Amino acid sequence: MTTIEDFTSQYGLVQKIDAFGYMKYLTENPDAPCKHGKVVLVTADTPLKASRGEGKTTTTIALIDALNKRGIDAAAVLRQPSMGITAAGSKGGASGGGKASLTHPELIDWGLCGEMGAIEAAQNLLVSFAEKAIDEGKLDTILVPRVSEVPSRSLRSTAVDYGKGNVPEKVVLTPTCELMQIMVLSRSMDEISERVSKMIAGTKDGKAVTFGEFVDLWRITGILADAVKPAKTETVNGSPVYVHGGPFANVSIGIPTLVSVEMACALHDVVVVEAGYGTDAGAQKWLDIACREYGAQWPSAAIVVTRASTWRDDPELAWRYPFHVQRLENLDIPTFPLINLWEGEDDQVPSLQATADELGFRTPIVGNLFRDGGEALVPQLDGFVDALQNGSMPAEPHSHKGMALTENAKWVAENAYGVPAERVIYKPGFTESVSKAMELCQSAGISLDNLTFVAVKSPATMTDNDRAPEEERTVTLKKVEVHAGAGLVHVNLTTSLTTPMPKIV
Amino acid sequence: MTTIEDFTSQYGLVQKIDAFGYMKYLTENPDAPCKHGKVVLVTADTPLKASRGEGKTTTTIALIDALNKRGIDAAAVLRQPSMGITAAGSKGGASGGGKASLTHPELIDWGLCGEMGAIEAAQNLLVSFAEKAIDEGKLDTILVPRVSEVPSRSLRSTAVDYGKGNVPEKVVLTPTCELMQIMVLSRSMDEISERVSKMIAGTKDGKAVTFGEFVDLWRITGILADAVKPAKTETVNGSPVYVHGGPFANVSIGIPTLVSVEMACALHDVVVVEAGYGTDAGAQKWLDIACREYGAQWPSAAIVVTRASTWRDDPELAWRYPFHVQRLENLDIPTFPLINLWEGEDDQVPSLQATADELGFRTPIVGNLFRDGGEALVPQLDGFVDALQNGSMPAEPHSHKGMALTENAKWVAENAYGVPAERVIYKPGFTESVSKAMELCQSAGISLDNLTFVAVKSPATMTDNDRAPEEERTVTLKKVEVHAGAGLVHVNLTTSLTTPMPKIV
Repeated sequence: MTTIEDFTSQYGLVQKIDAFGYMKYLTENPDAPCKHGKVVLVTADTPLKASRGEGKTTTTIALIDALNKRGIDAAAVLRQPSMGITAAGSKGGASGGGKASLTHPELIDWGLCGEMGAIEAAQNLLVSFAEKAIDEGKLDTILVPRVSEVPSRSLRSTAVDYGKGNVPEKVVLTPTCELMQIMVLSRSMDEISERVSKMIAGTKDGKAVTFGEFVDLWRITGILADAVKPAKTETVNGSPVYVHGGPFANVSIGIPTLVSVEMACALHDVVVVEAGYGTDAGAQKWLDIACREYGAQWPSAAIVVTRASTWRDDPELAWRYPFHVQRLENLDIPTFPLINLWEGEDDQVPSLQATADELGFRTPIVGNLFRDGGEALVPQLDGFVDALQNGSMPAEPHSHKGMALTENAKWVAENAYGVPAERVIYKPGFTESVSKAMELCQSAGISLDNLTFVAVKSPATMTDNDRAPEEERTVTLKKVEVHAGAGLVHVNLTTSLTTPMPKIV
Repeated sequence: MTTIEDFTSQYGLVQKIDAFGYMKYLTENPDAPCKHGKVVLVTADTPLKASRGEGKTTTTIALIDALNKRGIDAAAVLRQPSMGITAAGSKGGASGGGKASLTHPELIDWGLCGEMGAIEAAQNLLVSFAEKAIDEGKLDTILVPRVSEVPSRSLRSTAVDYGKGNVPEKVVLTPTCELMQIMVLSRSMDEISERVSKMIAGTKDGKAVTFGEFVDLWRITGILADAVKPAKTETVNGSPVYVHGGPFANVSIGIPTLVSVEMACALHDVVVVEAGYGTDAGAQKWLDIACREYGAQWPSAAIVVTRASTWRDDPELAWRYPFHVQRLENLDIPTFPLINLWEGEDDQVPSLQATADELGFRTPIVGNLFRDGGEALVPQLDGFVDALQNGSMPAEPHSHKGMALTENAKWVAENAYGVPAERVIYKPGFTESVSKAMELCQSAGISLDNLTFVAVKSPATMTDNDRAPEEERTVTLKKVEVHAGAGLVHVNLTTSLTTPMPKIV
């Protein structure tokens, strides 16, 4: 009998799985035994700053440990942290901590099996081929950026062929690039190949030229051969954890690869998908991008993590947490608040429970997950398990394909950030940026309104000023960037950086 | 009993070996069983152009297959090809061909296990830390380049912080960078760490500042944790092949990691090390850098590969092949000419043998190794095996440490390229470049003359014009670059590029 083991190979201390192959096998063998796991989203309050996590990964790990302890076959799917950021010391890794840890966090944090390096090489190779196309007269402007896994603020604005051509460029962080998005959204190597061929390399006489017009696609898929395989590791308690695909829900789509989630659903009854930074970033993107437009499974439950201090110590921002919980409940997703306590906060449990009660939340799950791991959760999960087991499989959400870009932006502002359409502001230049994107799409034979909307924003804010009174909050639309291969259109909002390339600090 | 298996783990279709750990184990357990294999160098005639190989890897693979067939335990150590160059289509892979192939050439050619990506990230992270040091006033000029695995001519001259600071930079090809050299030359992670700490990051008020002064070294070694492990694969006939370390004997040191060769010598009786491009590049560097200055084993025999056409079809360059063979014989290395035939050249064997005889060569080994693999070699190796088995272990060569840089350059020009000292020319600016390097070294507390000389040159030429008559050939010294961490000083010669960053073609 063919099993997942036939698609699995050891790769040092982790395993790599040929998920494309396994899912193809299941499609071709509809009678082969497989599970139909439900997706649970672990997301969070909007963080006070990007470098301060609420504990989503810690929660995810503790949650699957607790579910497994309760006899439920649960696994987690995590995004691969950006090694550049971790290695530079700008933030900690993203692999849990304390009793809610992975067996080999250092592998996850420090480059895993070279996936990011492969994507970096492949995207940079595309740029080199575009330069060659310029030399050959097939292209006059390049629109695809080079990438670097390592942050460096000075790379936000660069010039190549300096002293002669002085061609201005920018370098973006590898995990945020279009090729990473393509890997995240594709369900086969053929789809990757097709999407790369549709990537707009640049323009010739103002008209879009795609990579399919001049690149041998096998060169790119050759580089990605191992990178497309999810890694499998486990928690210190033996719960399975899959790691695959890029982070950065602020400046990109910030979700794990769809194939890794679907594979996990075929293997386990509950699949916990981590979606951060906050609900306004990772969860919004899972729901409105992955589920609405790319056929991912609508979550059967959600957990919204916060720290006691994030929730309550800054009164001006205290509206955000209940807003997130309410938004998910309104989408018919049973949503459980989870407060991840830090050392010395145990005495706050009664008051936190009282606040949750006042706000009309479900009974909150509270624990020091770093200290106590899944043990802290086991007795608190009755309601959660009940919602999961007795809820019906969710219906397919409505697609926004065909909705005008600005309408889509307004819809997201209203639904995900609480700002009504009339307070969505166009920054000078935005309308021109939309027109330009529209022309570019037309010249490539696609419609801008059929691309999926990706909000590019700061992880720590939803509006131009989250501290303003509700009726004064605005969202400013700044500029537009087309990722035709991935099928996405990025719109920069509010205080977003125009180039996703952090400074090391 | 502890064996190499205890240091080996599966990594997809190849294995990775903790060579540092195994060699440490052998040092600490002098009675543990191990072999004392002899090193054989497979090198080549100077190629007519860089993209046209003579067939060194094909020969290396056929040779170990033939030796194993003769009952001799032989393994090969190959350098990891540069994926960027291969994927860009600028040259074929470097993993043999036809019957002289590896089981999984695609792995070797397409990024192996992410080693190059890790080195790229680590070297680029060093540059980012140097930028941070500038912000903090610890540094005012950066001397370490960023790297890219993917070739792109426009990266030879770049500017970062463009539009504001306009800081000129260059980007070099990852496999040629100082961090790759450090990995190639180091025998432990501690040595890597120490060498990185001695790398000159840049200057402050004209004085050298090293990375040890401001970087947490564990961040760099963390990234390199898997990259330092040699990969093990095999030929289609089952002979063991280790792959580790960067190529590019033209612009860098172009040798596999010393630890991979030493590990192979502890495991096998004969270890074939591929050293290319030609004898003037790879072999010169194995002998004069690895053996003379870094304690590598002097070869017990050498094979110099050529193609019939390279050797004889260009009369002006026909002096090079016998020059190489003679140079190695003069160094007491039994040297066997090997002519790698292509389709349709079988009838040339008698005339090739006659030419070899005229030139006073040992009996040449001749075969179509792509078509026939090791089978073609088995009956021709009596003399080679005899030289290997009956030769004594070679003596340690003399170090050139303390020899003035220019004397060293003249010594190499005379011995490796056949150009006497009086025809070594200083290009305008060279003397100033030496003085500057000397001052830089002094300010770092090291002596320029204790660094090991690395010739940076075109792979296809040894002199300013190899076609000139012997008595008119010159070598021009152009400029100097210090790699204090690796312990090397690069000197650009003749027609070398000043930045190792090819254009894709």
